[in-house]
Amino acid sequence: MNAAYHRLKARFARITLLGEAQAMLHWDAAAVMPPGGAEARGEQLAALSGLSHELLTAPQVAEDLAEAQAEGEWDSANLDLMRQTHRRATALPTALVEATTRANAACEARWRHARAQSDFALVAPALKEVVRLQRETAAALAEATRLSPYDALMEGYQRGIGASDVEPIFAAYEQFLREALPQAEALQAEALQASRPTPRPLAGPFPVPQQQALCRAMAERVGLDFDHARLDESTHPFCGGTPADVRITTRYSADSVAQALFGVLHETGHALYERGLPAAFARQPVGEAAGMAAHESQSLIIEMQACRSDAFLRFIGPQLQASFGGAAEAYDPANLAALWRRVERGFIRVDADELTYPAHVILRFRLERALIGGELEVEGIPAAWNEGFARLLGLTPPDDARGCLQDIHWYDGAFGYFPSYTLGAMAAAQLMRAAREAEPGLDAALAQGDFTPLRDWLRQAVHGQGSRLGFQDLLRAATGKPLDPSDFTNHLRGRYLNA
Amino acid sequence: MNAAYHRLKARFARITLLGEAQAMLHWDAAAVMPPGGAEARGEQLAALSGLSHELLTAPQVAEDLAEAQAEGEWDSANLDLMRQTHRRATALPTALVEATTRANAACEARWRHARAQSDFALVAPALKEVVRLQRETAAALAEATRLSPYDALMEGYQRGIGASDVEPIFAAYEQFLREALPQAEALQAEALQASRPTPRPLAGPFPVPQQQALCRAMAERVGLDFDHARLDESTHPFCGGTPADVRITTRYSADSVAQALFGVLHETGHALYERGLPAAFARQPVGEAAGMAAHESQSLIIEMQACRSDAFLRFIGPQLQASFGGAAEAYDPANLAALWRRVERGFIRVDADELTYPAHVILRFRLERALIGGELEVEGIPAAWNEGFARLLGLTPPDDARGCLQDIHWYDGAFGYFPSYTLGAMAAAQLMRAAREAEPGLDAALAQGDFTPLRDWLRQAVHGQGSRLGFQDLLRAATGKPLDPSDFTNHLRGRYLNA
Repeated sequence: MNAAYHRLKARFARITLLGEAQAMLHWDAAAVMPPGGAEARGEQLAALSGLSHELLTAPQVAEDLAEAQAEGEWDSANLDLMRQTHRRATALPTALVEATTRANAACEARWRHARAQSDFALVAPALKEVVRLQRETAAALAEATRLSPYDALMEGYQRGIGASDVEPIFAAYEQFLREALPQAEALQAEALQASRPTPRPLAGPFPVPQQQALCRAMAERVGLDFDHARLDESTHPFCGGTPADVRITTRYSADSVAQALFGVLHETGHALYERGLPAAFARQPVGEAAGMAAHESQSLIIEMQACRSDAFLRFIGPQLQASFGGAAEAYDPANLAALWRRVERGFIRVDADELTYPAHVILRFRLERALIGGELEVEGIPAAWNEGFARLLGLTPPDDARGCLQDIHWYDGAFGYFPSYTLGAMAAAQLMRAAREAEPGLDAALAQGDFTPLRDWLRQAVHGQGSRLGFQDLLRAATGKPLDPSDFTNHLRGRYLNA
Repeated sequence: MNAAYHRLKARFARITLLGEAQAMLHWDAAAVMPPGGAEARGEQLAALSGLSHELLTAPQVAEDLAEAQAEGEWDSANLDLMRQTHRRATALPTALVEATTRANAACEARWRHARAQSDFALVAPALKEVVRLQRETAAALAEATRLSPYDALMEGYQRGIGASDVEPIFAAYEQFLREALPQAEALQAEALQASRPTPRPLAGPFPVPQQQALCRAMAERVGLDFDHARLDESTHPFCGGTPADVRITTRYSADSVAQALFGVLHETGHALYERGLPAAFARQPVGEAAGMAAHESQSLIIEMQACRSDAFLRFIGPQLQASFGGAAEAYDPANLAALWRRVERGFIRVDADELTYPAHVILRFRLERALIGGELEVEGIPAAWNEGFARLLGLTPPDDARGCLQDIHWYDGAFGYFPSYTLGAMAAAQLMRAAREAEPGLDAALAQGDFTPLRDWLRQAVHGQGSRLGFQDLLRAATGKPLDPSDFTNHLRGRYLNA
């Protein structure tokens, strides 16, 4: 370790501190800011990211990177990540970055309007400009990183996995779904007819203060330490803040407890990842989470794998009854499973069950890859969307609001992000299988509301690894193999296809 | 206006944006941060202030200041303030700034312990180091500003007024108090004996949700727009945030409504000042508030001048009754006056009434001036405090916790700040008198809970002036004369010495 490397560490720590300030200001904007603060907040965030960019691209950084030497696995990985970060930051001309920021903001505003009107034509010109700039960005990053243009965008969200990894996995899933979905639907219909069980809705009411108390208690059970965390409300639930002070949000509806509860469990999974990052490399690239797919694996292993398991449903039923009263039958694990593990084809990604969710992602992955590659133009999106959706899920969206206008991502300039959702779901199943093998008492513990075995295993296998490894190597170290979607399809078979 | 001036404006805007981020992080730390976030927050704030300092002291700034030309009153004042800010920032060697930060933090931590034990000896060594560094700082600033050392420190809190202005004003007040205080006490005792009125305590209970609703409604009446503001809770009430998004806090006790209500009214006065700053010079030195004494004049004109006036007490009584119920007699304006305008000698500054409050400040001003001047050493503080307190208020503190250990200021390195409290109280009386002359319907409006005449006058005379004028010139423009303490003593005579 030489002086140049130490200078770089100090500089990256400073950049991360600016990032922490930005994270707090983002949380504030979503959770507590009065509406009149929005314009000033935008300027504060722009000033901070401008300064970060200057710190990252200053001439001294290139000089230090040329000289720097690091020893040991962690510091070597850290230095590699510094180089990658610097390469991406310097690959893009300032004029392109600024044009992108402006175009994204303009398009996002148009999109809100277009979605409300369900009129794609209203946003098409703005999206054309966004796509044009994304193509330019992808080309510049591709040149700097020697990846393909679309892979260079993907790398910005999840290092270590590209379209050629994803493509066959998604094709196989499409194949699997073609048989599994009708089968799951038939089993559900059969069970309904046989009344075993007829899903009995939870009666409610679900007063918000009791929901808040329950959500907080469950987040604590999963392992969130409220000395270093907050739980608040926002329109779109998210996990923000910093590793030392993680902020999760949810939204409450007095008609339903599932929305808030599973929202909190999902964000708690993200939060535990941040809390468990390696403290010895805090504020260094190698001390950060390994990427968006890795992050999603941690929210989904809590929400989907653990908290919708038979074991946990046995635990949560009595908790719900204690909070909201009502007849015990509704809280029976089999009834909760019928309510909360229901398969249903629908148009909206964020409402989808875990079996059909990947279909939503596969469609978006194919379209955005074609958009960046130039095989698809913006005008062709609605038709391509509807055609692809019909092929994947057998339904045709009745309008663009329930089709290609539903998600913010593209309209805000995020291309290459969507695959992370399904890569995360698959990784969650693979990690859960490995955790169960390593910790034979895991399910018995979950049935007692005890997350210790799962959490301890995740801390060691995932959280504590930071960004030392790319996505595939992280899975390899934790589970003995790179991403293997059969753990996910086996999980789905066990949960949805066992009559 | 030349290019150098425009570059400076852009740079100061950027520095102010960093300051806005810091303000939000400070608010967050006081109002909502989980305790485990404190250490990281300290590092985030240190990184932001380090970057601000670098932006302010970069060689380019000196070059631009040498070349810059500005025309018109506002831009000329702005350029002057840039020069002053730069002069102060470059006057101090980095090593001194860093040593000061460390010594202040260490001393503040010791002080919490010493105050809890009421043992000055525990903090004396740490305070000696703080004072040593403050003397060094004052000397360096004095050389750069050509002010006396203590005045150079005062300038950091309130530009445009020095110890030689304050000294005779405080001496005269001491003289006034010597007669006024026993007289006010005698009148109070007489009234009590004559039962006109016997102060009837408000019965309560005062449930916190109703207090919150009332406080918010009153802040809105005074003129705070909650599209650009929040009201929260914190241990020490304060006004923070930014002009576009101002954050006030208070604390609630179920036993008393006065504490929270007057706390909110006080902070609302500060908040209105921030909200009313000149938008055309937002994020420029001339667009900021004129200093701490000016700021305190705005909180006190709302809390003390307006909201403890006979007129407003007529309005607030029925509001309180509507919120908390109970017998109407307790809400009678004369009873509220007897409760909330009570004169009482006490040891604690923050609990003091407006007549005795200046005595607390005068004592601190004299001691801190002597400390910076070298006529007093740290070891001599407790004796000098007790002797001075006895001379001013006729009481001897029973221990140092109720004496020289009560305030955080010195132990955190703040010397030259204390006079602002009393300068603000005096300015508030002077401004109120001018406002009443300019707006003859002001009190009739207050009796209806209508702050429009007062607020409109303050916006024009104070808030909208930003930092264009120093403290004395601001008062001269608003009231036709520099600080004239007789408006304050006349106000006190009218309120406390009219049998």
